[in-house]
Amino acid sequence: MAWTNSEDRALRERAEAVIPNGMYGHQSVGMLPDDYPQFFGKAEGAYLWDVDGNRYIDFMCGYGPNLFGYGHEAINKAYVDQLKLGDAMTGPGAAMVELAEAMTAQVSHADWAMFCKNGTDATTMAMMVARAHTRRNVIIRAKGAYHGAAPWCTPVKVGTTPSDQANQVFCEYNDVASLEAAVREAGSDLAAIFASPIKHDTFVDQQLPSPEYARRARELCDELGALLIVDDVRAGFRLARDCSWSLVGVKPDLSAWGKAIANGHPISALLGSNSCRKAAGTIFTTGSYWFAAAAMAAGVVTMKLIRESDYLERTIALGERLRRGLDEAAERHGFALRQTGPAQTPLIMFDDDPGYSKSYLWNNALLKRGVYFHPWHNMFMCAALTEADVDNTVDRADDAFAVVKAAGPQEPVAKLARMRRAA
Amino acid sequence: MAWTNSEDRALRERAEAVIPNGMYGHQSVGMLPDDYPQFFGKAEGAYLWDVDGNRYIDFMCGYGPNLFGYGHEAINKAYVDQLKLGDAMTGPGAAMVELAEAMTAQVSHADWAMFCKNGTDATTMAMMVARAHTRRNVIIRAKGAYHGAAPWCTPVKVGTTPSDQANQVFCEYNDVASLEAAVREAGSDLAAIFASPIKHDTFVDQQLPSPEYARRARELCDELGALLIVDDVRAGFRLARDCSWSLVGVKPDLSAWGKAIANGHPISALLGSNSCRKAAGTIFTTGSYWFAAAAMAAGVVTMKLIRESDYLERTIALGERLRRGLDEAAERHGFALRQTGPAQTPLIMFDDDPGYSKSYLWNNALLKRGVYFHPWHNMFMCAALTEADVDNTVDRADDAFAVVKAAGPQEPVAKLARMRRAA
Repeated sequence: MAWTNSEDRALRERAEAVIPNGMYGHQSVGMLPDDYPQFFGKAEGAYLWDVDGNRYIDFMCGYGPNLFGYGHEAINKAYVDQLKLGDAMTGPGAAMVELAEAMTAQVSHADWAMFCKNGTDATTMAMMVARAHTRRNVIIRAKGAYHGAAPWCTPVKVGTTPSDQANQVFCEYNDVASLEAAVREAGSDLAAIFASPIKHDTFVDQQLPSPEYARRARELCDELGALLIVDDVRAGFRLARDCSWSLVGVKPDLSAWGKAIANGHPISALLGSNSCRKAAGTIFTTGSYWFAAAAMAAGVVTMKLIRESDYLERTIALGERLRRGLDEAAERHGFALRQTGPAQTPLIMFDDDPGYSKSYLWNNALLKRGVYFHPWHNMFMCAALTEADVDNTVDRADDAFAVVKAAGPQEPVAKLARMRRAA
Repeated sequence: MAWTNSEDRALRERAEAVIPNGMYGHQSVGMLPDDYPQFFGKAEGAYLWDVDGNRYIDFMCGYGPNLFGYGHEAINKAYVDQLKLGDAMTGPGAAMVELAEAMTAQVSHADWAMFCKNGTDATTMAMMVARAHTRRNVIIRAKGAYHGAAPWCTPVKVGTTPSDQANQVFCEYNDVASLEAAVREAGSDLAAIFASPIKHDTFVDQQLPSPEYARRARELCDELGALLIVDDVRAGFRLARDCSWSLVGVKPDLSAWGKAIANGHPISALLGSNSCRKAAGTIFTTGSYWFAAAAMAAGVVTMKLIRESDYLERTIALGERLRRGLDEAAERHGFALRQTGPAQTPLIMFDDDPGYSKSYLWNNALLKRGVYFHPWHNMFMCAALTEADVDNTVDRADDAFAVVKAAGPQEPVAKLARMRRAA
């Protein structure tokens, strides 16, 4: 079947009338190559169909939530069974306790759990717990790190005031001297150091955390009585069956979770150590659906799959197979890729492509060939992918490299240039 | 079957180990009469069963979400059907456009919609849109009004900094002179006036908005180029099939929605007028599950029921029947009640009960008789209630009044006194 987009175009037109710009937020395709569809009709396992029926091998996984495959039978059964019993009731169900037990058993630093809905809820609560615990104000964040879209952390300042981001000091990720300078700047008012589990900022190469940086962050917090917060919302359980910084041997006081913890059912969580349990019990934080039982029941099954299945080894092996295959294909066409970060959460960019024109051509060509990649946001591998899917992806990538080569030099991508100038 | 709570006690003990204080947020029963169960096992129509199997006629409706009855067949079918197709995908489904069309058709001031998860997300976005639109900073809120639990609006300051609530001026609800004074204080930096649709603060009598207050808020915003925001998260579609301030003939620029809009499925929304559509398109705001399709599909069916069923007239009539019945029963026992607010979102307190001891005894006695009331938060009537449910409730209330009378004078409720001293 030939690729078409008439349904998507029709929906976009209707959306323009009733949604500002027709779409907003991280799933807006406004800044993606031109053919990317905005609306989807179906998802199953590792596949995604847009509203025109075009099928894609999906490497975005809903921007993270899909870990075990879309529509996972056992996880969705747990959700629907609990929905039949009761979801958003006048109080939580037993599943809340079961999920708190499962997550604190799974994550080695964690002694307690609090559930919420957005990743931003969890990072916001982490900040509040740290401020309540220390009775201090300042938090340190790494420049360019994403911790959510609330006024205190949104990367775009429109509609916020300077006081929304008061009491924050910034450092460079993986730069011990810069972290130490930030700590000096915070002085006796340091409440917490926030850390992404890896550097997974958009538009730049990913970086694994250096053990020195992670250990120094822990030491500084210990010396100064501040709390260390790992924001594992995006990467949680994709790098390890524990907090991602378990890989560098560092335990935070608080960790924020979301996305994959119930394989896409709406729930996020703040996990904490006993060091700050008392403070966590003093903040007021809540939401209309935070105690709804169905997503918690789905989370319990997801935790069991995390504990008992080989999803992690599998997504790592598939990621490495993809990385090798793409490097070889690129080389055949005379291109060099920058494939950074863990293989199972890859970011793939072209060397020598400052205007993103190669990247956009290549991603768009892949899309038209049934592969959904992202040009400047890290991607995700789900456990429903097969080796055949990966090999097919590499074959299609090979064709897409040929398209880029045939096109020759191009102007920089105009909409990206505009956005980056505005930022 | 005799009322028991052994399962609830056992779960609470497990919860104490893995959740700070065993529970948090608005559904914690820590401040409720002692026998209130924390964990629920089942919900159906207007009924709720705790984990020990005790059944209650539920007047809290999950603190608002349940409008058409728990487990509503058509609404849940829409959710599950969409879940089978795809929920949290790499982009929204067509249901996003359908729901935006349905809500903007339903709410007369609204030309566009943006969806999110928490009520707090919607009020936060409203604030950001107002600041982006006006390029000013100050928002006016009424003292005691709840607009969410983020640092900028939480009623409890623990874990926040003074700058989190900078750029805010407070007034008294329904007091035109106080509103005008607040506007003078904001001066040329006024971005928005927030308004609850009714005064539904906890612990105090509810008040309907005075038309003078609502109209003056609109006039002041128009004069000064500021935006008027109605926070309809809690009361939305319970007072009207339109924004709640349609009842006083005032159209806001922005309205925040949640809870009942998908009958408990997790979704909230910001609706806006064309006056600020452009600004809404400039803020960055997003969340992991905001574009998930299943809750949107459930919302589309809920909107249809709001439009086509007699739920509103029905809940009003049931509320009035309850109010009359309770007044008569109270009088028979020599008590006077303060039943305030719309009959379908009632707040019921005792006259001459400053320490809440009558209220707590009465609510606890009702609970043990199978009626779930709340002593200091407004309640909610769902459309699945019957006249027989209401009459049964009145009968049980009659017995509960006898319990209060027999108990005679009591000490003030100690835990409430502590909380109110701390606040």
